Amino acid sequence: MLTNDQLAKWDRESFFHPSTHLGQFARGEAAQRIVTGGEGVFITDRDGNRLLDGFAGLYCVNVGYGRAEIAEAIATQARELSYYHSYAGHGSEASITLSKMVMDRAPEGMARVYFGLGGSDANETNIKLVWYYNNILGRPEKKKIISRWRGYHGSGLMTGSLTGLDLFHRKFDLPLSQVIHTEAPYHFRHPDPTMSEADFTAHCVAKLEELIAAEGADTIAAFIGEPVLGTGGIVPPPAGYWPAIKAVLDRHDILLILDEVVTGFGRLGSMFGAGHYGVQPDLITCAKGLTSAYAPLSASIVGQRMWDVLMQGTDENGVLGHGWTYSAHPIGAAAGIANLKLIDDLGLVENAGTVGRYLNETMRAAVGDHVHVGEVRGEGMLCAVELVADRDKRSFFDAAEGKGAKVVAAMLKRGVIARAMPQGDILGFAPPLCLTQAEADQIVAVTKDSIAEVLG
Amino acid sequence: MLTNDQLAKWDRESFFHPSTHLGQFARGEAAQRIVTGGEGVFITDRDGNRLLDGFAGLYCVNVGYGRAEIAEAIATQARELSYYHSYAGHGSEASITLSKMVMDRAPEGMARVYFGLGGSDANETNIKLVWYYNNILGRPEKKKIISRWRGYHGSGLMTGSLTGLDLFHRKFDLPLSQVIHTEAPYHFRHPDPTMSEADFTAHCVAKLEELIAAEGADTIAAFIGEPVLGTGGIVPPPAGYWPAIKAVLDRHDILLILDEVVTGFGRLGSMFGAGHYGVQPDLITCAKGLTSAYAPLSASIVGQRMWDVLMQGTDENGVLGHGWTYSAHPIGAAAGIANLKLIDDLGLVENAGTVGRYLNETMRAAVGDHVHVGEVRGEGMLCAVELVADRDKRSFFDAAEGKGAKVVAAMLKRGVIARAMPQGDILGFAPPLCLTQAEADQIVAVTKDSIAEVLG
Repeated sequence: MLTNDQLAKWDRESFFHPSTHLGQFARGEAAQRIVTGGEGVFITDRDGNRLLDGFAGLYCVNVGYGRAEIAEAIATQARELSYYHSYAGHGSEASITLSKMVMDRAPEGMARVYFGLGGSDANETNIKLVWYYNNILGRPEKKKIISRWRGYHGSGLMTGSLTGLDLFHRKFDLPLSQVIHTEAPYHFRHPDPTMSEADFTAHCVAKLEELIAAEGADTIAAFIGEPVLGTGGIVPPPAGYWPAIKAVLDRHDILLILDEVVTGFGRLGSMFGAGHYGVQPDLITCAKGLTSAYAPLSASIVGQRMWDVLMQGTDENGVLGHGWTYSAHPIGAAAGIANLKLIDDLGLVENAGTVGRYLNETMRAAVGDHVHVGEVRGEGMLCAVELVADRDKRSFFDAAEGKGAKVVAAMLKRGVIARAMPQGDILGFAPPLCLTQAEADQIVAVTKDSIAEVLG
Repeated sequence: MLTNDQLAKWDRESFFHPSTHLGQFARGEAAQRIVTGGEGVFITDRDGNRLLDGFAGLYCVNVGYGRAEIAEAIATQARELSYYHSYAGHGSEASITLSKMVMDRAPEGMARVYFGLGGSDANETNIKLVWYYNNILGRPEKKKIISRWRGYHGSGLMTGSLTGLDLFHRKFDLPLSQVIHTEAPYHFRHPDPTMSEADFTAHCVAKLEELIAAEGADTIAAFIGEPVLGTGGIVPPPAGYWPAIKAVLDRHDILLILDEVVTGFGRLGSMFGAGHYGVQPDLITCAKGLTSAYAPLSASIVGQRMWDVLMQGTDENGVLGHGWTYSAHPIGAAAGIANLKLIDDLGLVENAGTVGRYLNETMRAAVGDHVHVGEVRGEGMLCAVELVADRDKRSFFDAAEGKGAKVVAAMLKRGVIARAMPQGDILGFAPPLCLTQAEADQIVAVTKDSIAEVLG
């Protein structure tokens, strides 16, 4: 083992960390944490801390840390066959088996699964497939993608454009012109606080209709959205939202991409958000929950009406010119198989529903009446506490005060990891799906104490 | 173990393979191969075949198959800590150690390494960084990227645009408008066969100068190229190409991105193509050779002049809004460490040089005079045999005849995997760097017999 000092120095001098303040980190002004292990919902670091990870990494370690079943599946696969490509009809027992397991769990009407590496590249694949689809159908002008403000769909050039958050656009010349954004389905932040949820859904639908009318339905290929807004604030949709949106899309022959990177494989207490909200997508994006992050793997699940056109496309044009060297990587596939089995064996979809509900209820009871808490909201094993300057006026703190980040820092001192969501003072919780009620109690108690410390 | 039939059926019914004819595969008309294991330069499949993999997967399994050292490193990491994220200054011992090892091997003048998952996403990161760089420098118009026809840089929307091959553009509306292409440094295919290599380099330089003049240097941010053209035909550059190109770029303050996904970590018989050809890049893209594909991992190595501006950027604007959940994944990092050690311990960079030279020389001696072989070319452990209809007229076969694919199919029957490159009738060879002379002899003998079978 290396000494902390040497490792710390290498880290500052060599490692370009994602989503980091590069100057502060290089100069040693920003914190560094070297994680060494984990067990269940806890991680440990080299400084001897043991922390309850209330965000499951980046809402991805759904089965919890230290699962020997997945580690051994990875080890076995690494010894047998670490890699072969999956181009031109090649596969491994692991990748083919996982494709079958994914399709068995997918909503009805889905036809095939394409494997990539992470959520961003899966959405990149999806946009390419949508464009290809309309080219094959002879509709070369039908290409724009509608996303929502506050959606999160990745941080590439196209996928960061789909994302509707300032942090991911700033200084990167995004969004690209092919992407247009519509209203976020974020009831709490709507300027008129008297509007009911049902009226707000109607308002979102009207805004979408307006946008389609202004742009022309024949220029719009697809609509992309997360079943529950994730990084944009952990916001479940208002009542009736998804069926109402889907009806508009159907009327204008616009495809629906459901980005289930966060929600797929159980986080809402249902296998997929599609079923949870009763909406039929043309494409489903999966990543995090597919392997619980034990190895990189993403999936684009393609619906039958798209698949039929993709087959027509290759019949007319030959091989589809799309693929990653590491598509369907055997190590990721082995991790995925073991992970999906574990989710079944431990009943984690059900646990996400029951303990998630408990977490949300106890959180609401503990902090919901605090003078600086505007809303406690969630669905399944997702929960958010939105801080406000004034409850009655529903006014927000100045972003520069960093109130959310301060509460999260106070929680960290008490041994619990929450996430300060990037736009607004919103405490985010997305623990592993194996969370127990006692662990939920610990999260809630620490949240309550930390809010009191920072906000009185 | 599952029966072949059941697995085969699942494969046809569930699995969307990359770069595949989807209609033919689904209907059972296109071949299927289920790979089960590998050892050294050989793979085995479920039908009992043992094949010499003359393309190392997709030029990526550089240390060869079945390396227990890497499998055990992956297994150990999976048991200790399969995953934690690397956002906001977080890391693992594996990811930090690998960052140091990469920087120790990188050319002089490089400052930091960002880890992604595959070559496409690393190039996506690079383009984002280039745009950010010019925004921080107050040059918002300096954004276009010059790539070369026949370059390969990925198959995403931006990275597929950088790629200069028809297969990856067709029906996908690519290239995007931000990318412009200049002449491929492909001496053999230049219309004037009397032009010397030196004159051809001057011609490529002049073409680049023309393009820059036409577009305006103040609109051009970067030039991207592979040290040796890869998927575009395995074409080493003409003599003096890289220093001459670099001089033009310097004159116009245009950054250089060297895409070393194929060449990085030894394939040319040098650690990097940058040193091999004596050119200083601002960004280096790495993937395949970084882990020998044992686990997905890519790297963007950032030069000092860019890094200084990136730090300035976060000092002025806060956190850099870019990252993948699986950036610097511990499993990939552990595989990378074990892989780079193995490359050193086995002397594979040197072996790539010596056995690669032997492969090229014996190939040239065996088939170079064949009436339908126009050129045998290569560098390090890369080799290509370009087929022609007429040697003297330097005329090519009709693509529809698929001569290259037919030779590759004939080689497969004889137990050797080569790749029919996608544009032209070009047989591609990129074996593991551990190839022996005896194995090189086998590749050459099979190539010779297969060319004779198909072309007489």
